[in-house]
Amino acid sequence: MSLALVTSSEKTTFAQAVASLRALTRDDLGRMDQEIMMRMDSPVAMIPDLAGHLINAGGKRLRPMLTLSAARLFGYRGGHHILMAAAVELIHGATLLHDDVVDASRLRRGTKTANVIWGNKESVLVGDYIFSRAFELMVSAENLRVLKILSHASSVIAEGEVLQLATQKNLQTTREMYIDVINAKTAALFAAATHTGAIIASAPQREEVAMEAFGRDFGIAYQLVDDALDYTGFEGKLGKTVGDDFREGKMTLPVILSVASADAEERQFWQRTIADGQQADEDFAVACEIMVRHDAVGKTLALAGQYADKAIANLSSVPATEDTEALRTLVQTSLSRAN
Amino acid sequence: MSLALVTSSEKTTFAQAVASLRALTRDDLGRMDQEIMMRMDSPVAMIPDLAGHLINAGGKRLRPMLTLSAARLFGYRGGHHILMAAAVELIHGATLLHDDVVDASRLRRGTKTANVIWGNKESVLVGDYIFSRAFELMVSAENLRVLKILSHASSVIAEGEVLQLATQKNLQTTREMYIDVINAKTAALFAAATHTGAIIASAPQREEVAMEAFGRDFGIAYQLVDDALDYTGFEGKLGKTVGDDFREGKMTLPVILSVASADAEERQFWQRTIADGQQADEDFAVACEIMVRHDAVGKTLALAGQYADKAIANLSSVPATEDTEALRTLVQTSLSRAN
Repeated sequence: MSLALVTSSEKTTFAQAVASLRALTRDDLGRMDQEIMMRMDSPVAMIPDLAGHLINAGGKRLRPMLTLSAARLFGYRGGHHILMAAAVELIHGATLLHDDVVDASRLRRGTKTANVIWGNKESVLVGDYIFSRAFELMVSAENLRVLKILSHASSVIAEGEVLQLATQKNLQTTREMYIDVINAKTAALFAAATHTGAIIASAPQREEVAMEAFGRDFGIAYQLVDDALDYTGFEGKLGKTVGDDFREGKMTLPVILSVASADAEERQFWQRTIADGQQADEDFAVACEIMVRHDAVGKTLALAGQYADKAIANLSSVPATEDTEALRTLVQTSLSRAN
Repeated sequence: MSLALVTSSEKTTFAQAVASLRALTRDDLGRMDQEIMMRMDSPVAMIPDLAGHLINAGGKRLRPMLTLSAARLFGYRGGHHILMAAAVELIHGATLLHDDVVDASRLRRGTKTANVIWGNKESVLVGDYIFSRAFELMVSAENLRVLKILSHASSVIAEGEVLQLATQKNLQTTREMYIDVINAKTAALFAAATHTGAIIASAPQREEVAMEAFGRDFGIAYQLVDDALDYTGFEGKLGKTVGDDFREGKMTLPVILSVASADAEERQFWQRTIADGQQADEDFAVACEIMVRHDAVGKTLALAGQYADKAIANLSSVPATEDTEALRTLVQTSLSRAN
């Protein structure tokens, strides 16, 4: 069992770890929120309305906190990390808006999605606006290296989203293709978030590289847990619904592992429900049962543990500050988080 | 009658003017196409497939030719105008992909749209990819001023698209709101295209400003003609369909002018067809008849002529080269172009 999995059995929850990191970065987060509100202001009322719904609706601000804490742990005293954090959060927000259109999602963080309230067209166009403003914002920091990293990350994210769509309902999808998808659609932005924080703070080359690797490995671990939770998480008042990935025919690791171990009957089940997209109400429960049989969720979480260990190992090369400690706890607790 | 309208009665057609400009910029356009193909390369096959369909399907390359000729007319000898032109064309391409999804368009330049061939989800995500790659490309030119102009133009375009959506089916839309929409959704990119060309070529301040204004006024004139053509253009084998704006309830100037002059019966007609979106097959012909009655298309073209005159007047402040002359002819002939 991975070190991170063992350590995460301590009492601290993921929500508490997020709260600790938020307490450390509170002032910066407040300034970031102001920056975002200013950038989302527009005489076209639909823009601040829809963007406000997206940005204020209970998001954890996980990615911008990575940027802020990465800059803080190298003792950064300037203000450009606020701009970078805002850009990272806006890129993430624009991606969420378009994702929800593409997946026809109806609920996010317990709230109706923008595509349900305003419509698909509105979400596509306001997403484009948010994305453009993110670029405008990062250009204003006048740091070409950081611009290269964030603009490249955006391309990689979009490429990952297209790859995910292309592998949807395709039972031939391999574990390697899946890792490519989550590396692109999730880990690229986590990596850019921590990397740019370190760069803005003029971290030494070796530590800058360590922070990039930390973000990337944490991102992969985070998405692996997310994909496991879609088959095990509780569907409470808060949080997203479970079973979304199954209904959309997404080839996440729990499905890939189950298909790889399937007997003839199970194979037929996956063919019908995922490849052919013919699902009855009880099929999600059957899918969960099959996964238990092959320990597919357990194996997914074990892989997440390995990436979490790698992420945490990277932190040993950077200054040991309260931010570093908060990031370590964040990664550890993320493995046992609820949906 | 405007000078541009008079001059455009000469024999040169818009297609010939485009061909002349293309001949002047041929080498640069070829290098731009290579740059674009390289940037659209991806192991995710859907990306080069869909992007290739969009970019190679008979586009005029109008906007990048503006950048290239603007740089040329100031004697630019470097290579960065190629990158700027490619970025401008990719921003335009991403916008087209999302526009076609939002408008549920089925035909563009006589070819099936990407959303019809690949699907809406695919068009949204590949549009995001193209947009991100455009930013990555312009960052590679390492010119912060140009980056500010192009990233701001992108925000303005997206804001204009949202405003257009918000005014759709709204008979209260004023002429001023309409000018705001076309200034944002079309003229902002024309202006950024000519402006960045001049900047890259280190044009003197006054001439740089003149090129920005040239692009902006031409962009407004161009969109006014486009919106007039939707009620008068021939629906041939090539080109887009007429009546699209009417069917989508878009509040373009021909409709705004017709509503302003409407008697009670006509008012009812616009209420039913545009505001309530209840249209029968014969309604488009009726709309065209009403517009003839009030000379709504003629007045739209007259306004286009005024903006074309302003655009051309700006060219008198910049060096008189063969590129300058080609741009002048382009603007003049654009007023009498076919759909």
